[in-house]
Amino acid sequence: MLRRIKGVRYLSSKYFPNEPTSPVVKTASVPGPKSKQINQELGQVYDNKATYFVTDYFNSYGNYISDADGNKLLDVFCQISSIPLGYNNPKLIEAAKSDEMIDAIVNRPALACFPSTNYAQILKDGLLAAAPPGMNKIWTSLCGSDANETAYKAAFMYQHSKIRGNKPFSEEELSSVMNNKAPGASEMTILSFEKGFHGRTFGSLSTTRSKAIHKLDIPAFDWPVAPFPKLQYPLEEFEQENRQEEQRCLNKLEEIIENAPKQIAALIVEPVQSEGGDNHASSEFFQGIRDITKKHNVLFIVDEVQTGVGASGKFWAHEHWNLTSPPDMVTFSKKFQAAGFYYSNPDLQPKDAYRQFNTWCGDPSKAILAKAIYQVIKQDGLVSKTANVGDYLYSGLQQLVNKSDKLKNLRGKNFGTFIAFDCVNADVRNKLLADCRLNGLNVGGCGESGVRLRPTLLFEQKHADLFLNILEKVL
Amino acid sequence: MLRRIKGVRYLSSKYFPNEPTSPVVKTASVPGPKSKQINQELGQVYDNKATYFVTDYFNSYGNYISDADGNKLLDVFCQISSIPLGYNNPKLIEAAKSDEMIDAIVNRPALACFPSTNYAQILKDGLLAAAPPGMNKIWTSLCGSDANETAYKAAFMYQHSKIRGNKPFSEEELSSVMNNKAPGASEMTILSFEKGFHGRTFGSLSTTRSKAIHKLDIPAFDWPVAPFPKLQYPLEEFEQENRQEEQRCLNKLEEIIENAPKQIAALIVEPVQSEGGDNHASSEFFQGIRDITKKHNVLFIVDEVQTGVGASGKFWAHEHWNLTSPPDMVTFSKKFQAAGFYYSNPDLQPKDAYRQFNTWCGDPSKAILAKAIYQVIKQDGLVSKTANVGDYLYSGLQQLVNKSDKLKNLRGKNFGTFIAFDCVNADVRNKLLADCRLNGLNVGGCGESGVRLRPTLLFEQKHADLFLNILEKVL
Repeated sequence: MLRRIKGVRYLSSKYFPNEPTSPVVKTASVPGPKSKQINQELGQVYDNKATYFVTDYFNSYGNYISDADGNKLLDVFCQISSIPLGYNNPKLIEAAKSDEMIDAIVNRPALACFPSTNYAQILKDGLLAAAPPGMNKIWTSLCGSDANETAYKAAFMYQHSKIRGNKPFSEEELSSVMNNKAPGASEMTILSFEKGFHGRTFGSLSTTRSKAIHKLDIPAFDWPVAPFPKLQYPLEEFEQENRQEEQRCLNKLEEIIENAPKQIAALIVEPVQSEGGDNHASSEFFQGIRDITKKHNVLFIVDEVQTGVGASGKFWAHEHWNLTSPPDMVTFSKKFQAAGFYYSNPDLQPKDAYRQFNTWCGDPSKAILAKAIYQVIKQDGLVSKTANVGDYLYSGLQQLVNKSDKLKNLRGKNFGTFIAFDCVNADVRNKLLADCRLNGLNVGGCGESGVRLRPTLLFEQKHADLFLNILEKVL
Repeated sequence: MLRRIKGVRYLSSKYFPNEPTSPVVKTASVPGPKSKQINQELGQVYDNKATYFVTDYFNSYGNYISDADGNKLLDVFCQISSIPLGYNNPKLIEAAKSDEMIDAIVNRPALACFPSTNYAQILKDGLLAAAPPGMNKIWTSLCGSDANETAYKAAFMYQHSKIRGNKPFSEEELSSVMNNKAPGASEMTILSFEKGFHGRTFGSLSTTRSKAIHKLDIPAFDWPVAPFPKLQYPLEEFEQENRQEEQRCLNKLEEIIENAPKQIAALIVEPVQSEGGDNHASSEFFQGIRDITKKHNVLFIVDEVQTGVGASGKFWAHEHWNLTSPPDMVTFSKKFQAAGFYYSNPDLQPKDAYRQFNTWCGDPSKAILAKAIYQVIKQDGLVSKTANVGDYLYSGLQQLVNKSDKLKNLRGKNFGTFIAFDCVNADVRNKLLADCRLNGLNVGGCGESGVRLRPTLLFEQKHADLFLNILEKVL
């Protein structure tokens, strides 16, 4: 028996009084016939090959996603980890109807040239109030890919400016850069890890190393890659092996940096490699990265696009590490709807205008949404609640994994609901995901045979019970 | 005397009954003291070095932008050419308040995995209804930079797929790509033009050739660049020289393509190079590009991020060219708020899922806005009205340029309000822009000494008169 959380009060009922008490699947298949028909029509004009099912967002509610056929599935995938507070959350509807939002939608500003009178306040009440410890500045962009790319650009400009000092750009730099050649175009690099995922635009994709299909046929910068630890589970049985594996990776990382043919401007890492298979590492490993990057003047970027905003049981997953000094930049997107990066060192802002730039430089409508999301999370203490629910869910999964011969490598202990496990192979995983959907559970895969849980921050004990029951049934 | 447009009916009065009849400048400087103070606060947390003035969008109205000090300026810059129908347009406010919009804001979908039941219809009623001639498919993204980058990705995948045929990816491709090396990572290139601007992310920035400050210290792909014609004005006096200049550029283009060390997957060009100085070329020049790219199997991408959506007097500026066959892809953003690219060849869609991908793959809230924008433009015939107002404005500017020794190279005849001229040097231009603001006119620069006009599609004869009067006074 699972130990119930004491005195549980269902906040999800406060926001979603009419949330279903269990999933409803009316069709013999998911996607059902209506979903298939609409998807076929969509396919005439839009690349729809990745469609799971066509979604009726108007009738999705709380933790339940509704499809075109009227099926209602408990959702623990949540638009690839990007729905923070459930579907049709009344607090977000309130924000969407506000004068501030309507203004932001119809009068979208070019923020860096014509900032709005209220943008600083919107940031201060939302995105900046949520800033990771030690960070007090922000640059806003539009999605995870360009959040990372703008951080890379900041890193390159910072490193070159450090070398250049107060000298102006040279004539050679000014002319060579127009032909995409050094010295004007940088030959520095960004280091990332095997299995890391950092986005799909050309710069971010050059640091993405999750799967070949993401990268094939696209040009990439010749940037370095370091091994990420492959931990063995259960952790308590492989303490020594895992410590050695992490040390091996740290040694290799330092070796790569020391022998790099071109200066490494920055290193980027996810607190948990999500798309790449929900690969965790210890706090000591990340402290090791912090120490090595500091020693070698490599900027340390933490990609919290998927791990940020509460699901890990801390607002930012890297808070679990208790670093001796904060990262240089932290990137965010997904659950915050807004995107960008945090930092504190003013030198990460280029001294000239129009270097870190874009027509829009973000989107106040998303920053307003982020503010509403942050305020709900804060007022309702959703981070610590998610930590508790995660512990409960993890215990339940532990029991299932222990008695199943199909599941292994349960991970994410004491890490909120940011939990994953592997199936014995990809076929079993793919069948499991399909069977789950047919039983009213929408759950996503990751890596080769992984299953990742990415519920909302209003996913509670009762939802965890349903989840565990369905998973057990499907197994 | 300017010849007035006959029977003019002011649509701007229909949408903006209380629009000011002339600008109001209350402060001794623009930006004024409040604007400066708010901007200083913003600068504590956000890179604000490019700020013109802090804008009060709540009180901006129609063609008038209001600043933090209560100044109201006639706006012909319009958030870097991205405000289609004036500030606080009631039709857009209606769209912003719709149930469809509120749903799109609070339940933002991962469109490629969980498309919404209404997305196809939203596209068909808006973005696709506005598709350029010969195009019936769309991919949506978030801004001009990634609109172009997704088009580049489509081009690379298309060209490699053509070579690969029905063979699966090779083992060597699958492994090399994880290290960012050929053959898995492409060595093909995208060709762009000198002075072209196509965005700021790493791939799009590699094709941007407008100004060094946009590119310095950022790594770039070693991709080819071709000369763009430098036309002499007035056009009618330099017919032969300009024809020769364009032929020189076409010859050089074909030479570059024929001698390219790596296959050129696609060529990208703006109908008018905007950021690079509002550089025009003739329809014959663009037809020449179409012929050369077709002959050499180079995909032809037209970047209509700034020129699209009516301002040129056609919905898409490339419609002016009367090409013998349409471009392969047309990219859009800015005035449409939504972004992406149009195409018709189904082979530009990769055969496998998750190759053209992103968590969000666009944003229905922006597609809904694009639909409302398109419907107003269509119902009110704003494209042809803009063509007429543009002709009127051009004639007035012609008179000013003829009698001024500070202005030259007026361009954009018969091209709607997409008009520009040069000042004799950058200092004169910068002073002109500042003096215009102080006299109630917000206007933007481009290139080294250019002034570009980018008013809304509800900029009419009365606004043109005001504009001409202020400009004359400032001169």
